[in-house]
Order: sequence, then C-alpha cells, then structure tokens
Amino acid sequence: MPTNRLEAFSDGVLAIIITIMVLGLKVPTGHHLSDLVHTTGIGLLTYLLSFIYVGIYWNNHHHMFRLVRQVSGGVLWANLALLFCLSLFPFTTAWVDDSRFERTPVVIYGLNLLGAAIAYFVLQTVIIRQQGPKSPLREAVGADLKGKLSPVFYVAGILSALLIGGRVGVGLAEACFVAVAIMWVVPDRRIDRVVRQHQTLD
Amino acid sequence: MPTNRLEAFSDGVLAIIITIMVLGLKVPTGHHLSDLVHTTGIGLLTYLLSFIYVGIYWNNHHHMFRLVRQVSGGVLWANLALLFCLSLFPFTTAWVDDSRFERTPVVIYGLNLLGAAIAYFVLQTVIIRQQGPKSPLREAVGADLKGKLSPVFYVAGILSALLIGGRVGVGLAEACFVAVAIMWVVPDRRIDRVVRQHQTLD
Amino acid sequence: MPTNRLEAFSDGVLAIIITIMVLGLKVPTGHHLSDLVHTTGIGLLTYLLSFIYVGIYWNNHHHMFRLVRQVSGGVLWANLALLFCLSLFPFTTAWVDDSRFERTPVVIYGLNLLGAAIAYFVLQTVIIRQQGPKSPLREAVGADLKGKLSPVFYVAGILSALLIGGRVGVGLAEACFVAVAIMWVVPDRRIDRVVRQHQTLD
Amino acid sequence: MPTNRLEAFSDGVLAIIITIMVLGLKVPTGHHLSDLVHTTGIGLLTYLLSFIYVGIYWNNHHHMFRLVRQVSGGVLWANLALLFCLSLFPFTTAWVDDSRFERTPVVIYGLNLLGAAIAYFVLQTVIIRQQGPKSPLREAVGADLKGKLSPVFYVAGILSALLIGGRVGVGLAEACFVAVAIMWVVPDRRIDRVVRQHQTLD
Repeated sequence: MPTNRLEAFSDGVLAIIITIMVLGLKVPTGHHLSDLVHTTGIGLLTYLLSFIYVGIYWNNHHHMFRLVRQVSGGVLWANLALLFCLSLFPFTTAWVDDSRFERTPVVIYGLNLLGAAIAYFVLQTVIIRQQGPKSPLREAVGADLKGKLSPVFYVAGILSALLIGGRVGVGLAEACFVAVAIMWVVPDRRIDRVVRQHQTLD
Repeated sequence: MPTNRLEAFSDGVLAIIITIMVLGLKVPTGHHLSDLVHTTGIGLLTYLLSFIYVGIYWNNHHHMFRLVRQVSGGVLWANLALLFCLSLFPFTTAWVDDSRFERTPVVIYGLNLLGAAIAYFVLQTVIIRQQGPKSPLREAVGADLKGKLSPVFYVAGILSALLIGGRVGVGLAEACFVAVAIMWVVPDRRIDRVVRQHQTLD
Repeated sequence: MPTNRLEAFSDGVLAIIITIMVLGLKVPTGHHLSDLVHTTGIGLLTYLLSFIYVGIYWNNHHHMFRLVRQVSGGVLWANLALLFCLSLFPFTTAWVDDSRFERTPVVIYGLNLLGAAIAYFVLQTVIIRQQGPKSPLREAVGADLKGKLSPVFYVAGILSALLIGGRVGVGLAEACFVAVAIMWVVPDRRIDRVVRQHQTLD
Repeated sequence: MPTNRLEAFSDGVLAIIITIMVLGLKVPTGHHLSDLVHTTGIGLLTYLLSFIYVGIYWNNHHHMFRLVRQVSGGVLWANLALLFCLSLFPFTTAWVDDSRFERTPVVIYGLNLLGAAIAYFVLQTVIIRQQGPKSPLREAVGADLKGKLSPVFYVAGILSALLIGGRVGVGLAEACFVAVAIMWVVPDRRIDRVVRQHQTLD
C-alpha cells in the first residue's frame, strides 16, 4: 500500500491537534492587560510548548516517511497509536494550564510525552522490520541518540515532579520537557543525508 | 469522476471526527490523580474505543478505494451517508461517557455502530454494482465474513443491554462492541491479495 | 495558477464545517430515551439538513472544478466568499435548533442558504468570464434550471416564515429548504456529460 | 525536501483556523432579530475581518510557495512560527468581540496581526536566503511595498488605540486594520508575472 493517503490522514490529524489546542485558551472576562496575564498567561506558555511538540512530531514524521515506500497493516496501526497519544495533548495541556502547574497534571503531561515517544519508537521499529536487512530508515536513524535521550529526560522530569515536588520539582520537570523540545527543533540532518544518497543512487 | 478528491474529503472528515472527540474529555477541576480517574476515567475508555472504531473505518475505506477508479453520484452520496453516521460518534460517545454506561446511551451507541456498518455495506454494494460483473471489489470482499458478523454482534449487544439490562447487560453489550473492534484491527489481507494480483496483471 | 491547492483548501474547510456542526448537538443530561428526544431531537434534524446542504455544495464544487484548469485572483476570492457563507451554517443551524424553529432564526437560516447560493452563482460567473467565449463550464451549466429555482424557493421560504408566521409559515419555510436539498441530491448529469465529451476530444 | 507536504499541512491548519473561529460566535439566547444584533453583531464583524485576514495569508502563502521547490529545516520552522501566530486569531478575535472593542483587546489583536506579518516576513527572508543570489522569490517580491506598508499601519493602529484611546482611538485602530485587509485583497500580480516568465523560460 502506498504511503500518500497515510501521510495525508496523519497531516490532517496533526493539523487539527495543533489548532484545536487554541480552543483551550480561556478568553479573559475583564478587558485589561492584567486580566489577560492572569487568565491566559500560563495557557499561552503551555500552548506554545505543546504546539512546538506537535510541530516536532509532524517534522519527524514527515522526514521518516520520505524513506518509506510501502506500508503494511502493522504500520497503519502503529501510526494510529502515535496519533492517539498526540491527540491527548490538548487534554493534558488544558489540565496543566487549569491547575497552574500542579504536580499531578505535570506528571500526566510527562507521561503523555513519554507515551508519544514510545509510540514513535514502535512505529520506527515496525517500519525498519518491514523494510528488511537493508532498511534505509535504519541507516538514517543510526545510533538514534536524540531518540534515546528523550525518554530519559521525560522520565527524569516525571520523577523530579513526583519525588521532589513543590515549585522546584515541577520547575525541573518543565525544564526537562522544554530541553527535549529545544533538542529536537534542530532538524535531523542524518535523514536528509541518507535521502540525498539514495536519490544519487537512483 | 476520479476518486482522489472523494478520498481527500473523506480523510479530512475522518481526521476531524477522530480528533474532536478529545474535546469531549472533561478536564478535572481538582488536581489529584483521583480527580482524573473520577472525571475522565470512563471518558478515556470510551474515547479509546471510538478512536479505534474510526481508525478501523479509515483503514477499511482506504483499502476499499484502492480497488475503485471511478465514482458515480451514487457512490458520493453513499459515502456521505457513511461519513454522517461516523460524525455522530463524538456525540454518542459523549453521552455514554456522561451517563457512565447507562443502558439507553449504550443502546444508542450500538445503534450508531450498526448504522455505520449498514452505511459501509451500502457503499460497498453501490460500488460493486457500478463496477459490473467483473468487479475487483466483489472478488476482494468474497464471503465478507467479518462484514456479516459485525452487525450480528452489534444487535446482540443492543439486545443484551435492552433485555438483560443492569451492569450485566450493559457489560455484555460493551464486550460485544469491543470484540468487533478487536476482530477488525487485524487488517484485511484479502484486499491486499487482490490488489497485488491486479498489479501483476497490469 | 493551478486548481489543486484551491480544491484541497476548500475540501479542508468543507470537511471541518460538516464535522464541527456535531459539536452543536447538546448531550442530554438525563439518560432516558425521552431526554434524547427532548434535548437532541430537533438538533439531529437540523444537523442532518445542514449536513446534506454542505454535502451538496461539496459535490457541486467538486463537479465545477473538474472543468477549471486555471484560477485567477478573482476566483480565489469568490471561492473564499462561498466558504465564508457556508462556514456560518454551524452558527445559524445552532440558533434554529436552540430556538426550536422560531420564526427569526428560520428566516436567518434561509438568508444563509440564499447567501451561499448567490456566492456560488458569483463564483460560477467569475469562472465562466475567465474562461472566455468557449467556456466549458458555461456549456455544462446550460440553462441552469436548478440554480435558478433554488433562490426562488429560498425567498418563498423566507417570505412564508415572515408573512404567514406561526407553525404554518415556519413549516412551509422548512418544507421549501428541504425541497431544494432533495432537488440537488440527484447529481448533476450535465457536467458529467460535458466532461466526457471534452475527454473524448482530448 | 519537496514542498507538497508542507503545503498540505499548512492548508490544513489554515482551513481549521478559518473555520473554528465560527465556534466563537455566541448563539443568541432569545429568538428575535434584536437578540441576534445584540449578541452576535460585533462577533460577526470581527469574524469577517479575521476570516479575510486568514484568507489573505492563505492566498499569499499559496502564491509564495509556487516559487519554492525545496524546503530546508529552517523553512519548516519559520512556517510553523507563522502558523502559530495565525492560530492565535480565534483567541484574540474572541477577546475583541467579548469586550466589545475595548482598548487592550484591540491592541492585542493588532499585536497579533503585527506578529503574523513579522513571521511572514521572516519566512520570506529564510526562503530567499536558501534560494541564493538568483532567487525567483526575491525577484517576485521586488520592493515589497505592501509588505513594508502593512506593519506601519498595524503600529499606527496600535499606537492610536494606546495613545488616543476611547471610541476615537479604537475606531482609528480598526480602520487601520481594515485598510490593510483591503490593500491585500487585491491579488499580488507581481508573483503571477514572475511565475509566467519562469514557465516561459522552462
């Protein structure tokens, strides 16, 4: 099965997830700047972080599927599992915002990030297995340093919120989540390189 | 009329249905784990089930239209009827969730599943009739065991909720609906086979 | 400018309009069938009617753009004007539903239908002018009987709600709106014919 | 990396932004024309303005990417920054509407417009740099008079709301924002010309 419709469907779902999060921003009841800061300030920050995360996943998904020509049923379901995890972002983001960075919502947000990372890893593994021994995706992914570091950071964030707690623990957790986002915003040049090599071979 | 725009429109509608259901998840007012379980626990389960169902329909729709080259007006409307049934999922899912698995909402959810199955069957039949005696879709569908078993399960679920009622009847109904989902998550290899045969012939 | 991105954008907007109307359906607070009928009964009917109308516009838009190869800036804006009118359907549908078929909301709904019909006619005219004297779209549209009858029905419906009023006037108005929908659900075979002729010429 | 999936994703996000703003329109609780005017009158005006703005951005985005063949990671992120700014329109529009044109919400709306203009300019600059010395986009943009005038108008509007204030200052601000929209609705013929020249050269 060719990949174009799977890509179109994933693009649609990601476009909707990234956009409907704005519906979670609460419009201030007053009309002063302080009302905006008080009502929507935290919401804007959490929205920005989740927007960047969905953007990262779209970007990586986009890169990954450039090395995929055929998809099996297993890839379809692994892809849907990833989309399911990402579709929970509007919900977990809204809870972090509503609770103003309380411990449990931040932990759940971290678990959501961790779940998405695992689903992405599973998708990647299913594709590599399907492509067989000379998988171009396996070659492109290589040591996958970022992919291995991300869950470590998520777990560190979750644990610091759980074990340390309070302003400090939650702040550390958020710092971990922001750090992973910054790490990924730098685009992945390995796949670009492999794609160029394969195009040269063609 | 070629199928690409019908597929793009259907993908768009299915992507939106599968994503806006998350707007029905109620954000807890408290910030403890018990608030999450109490407020959103059932919602997450019903969301997951409906997400899988929409995923199944997208998957099957995607498979089916690989064997379709031209669409008539009748196919357009049969497709819209299917999309209408599926677009009610966010509503019926929300009612099941709000009522915490009361009998009537579960029956209505079952009727929604049954309606979507009938609409899918009508769409399949309209396409097969349009393709004429040597229809590749008819060949691919074959005995259509899953397609015939699903409505039996839906009706069994609806009847057990109606006639037995209580925790037991509703539980049986939900078990029927989950069973059909599991049955369909395994991808349909028949269409893959027929597609490969036709590609070989080309 | 080629038409593919305009079609993709229009498909996206129409897919969202047709789907977010379901968010306007109110989930019953009780869990009996009477709660569903009382809370959502009228909403389901108005949703169904608006769903069919958006489906008709998607269908006709789809047909029309099969005869268009290039779009000018004028076509882009005429298309956006049509999408704007259609994007008000979720709002006017919700008001008809909330007010349970009161006179003014039904009149506004009729004006929305009329506005969409006028915007569609303007779009069609802009395309025909751009295509010049041998416009295939002009040939396909021909006498455009349905296109001319629809606004007459809309105006008749609006006037009957305004002048007669009460249950009878509003009922007549709704009957007019339903009649136009039924008239259009039958697909437009003229465009199919002209498309086939042009393909034969190619 | 080819541009088609970036365009499809952007189209999806823009289609959703332009459509979900209608969810911000408040359905009147009464059923008279005065209820509509009172509850939704201002909302309809602000919705129309924001709809036109998103339409302008879609139109310009569409034009710009006709001159782009390859996208780098920098372009992906500049594009996401533009989409983020545009995704805030439903929120800032709703606040202007809720506050009935109070000073601070109008200033924030102007800042949102200014942010989107800057993001668009950054995206344009990143693409021109990537294309190198013979950039067709640079040639098409030319002196970019409209692009330079727009932020001047936005700043003028923001300042008049801030410094003059009251009905007069806010009215002037809105006049500035409407003026920019009118200026852009006229499509940009320069890009059409350059596209035609390049097609002739090919």
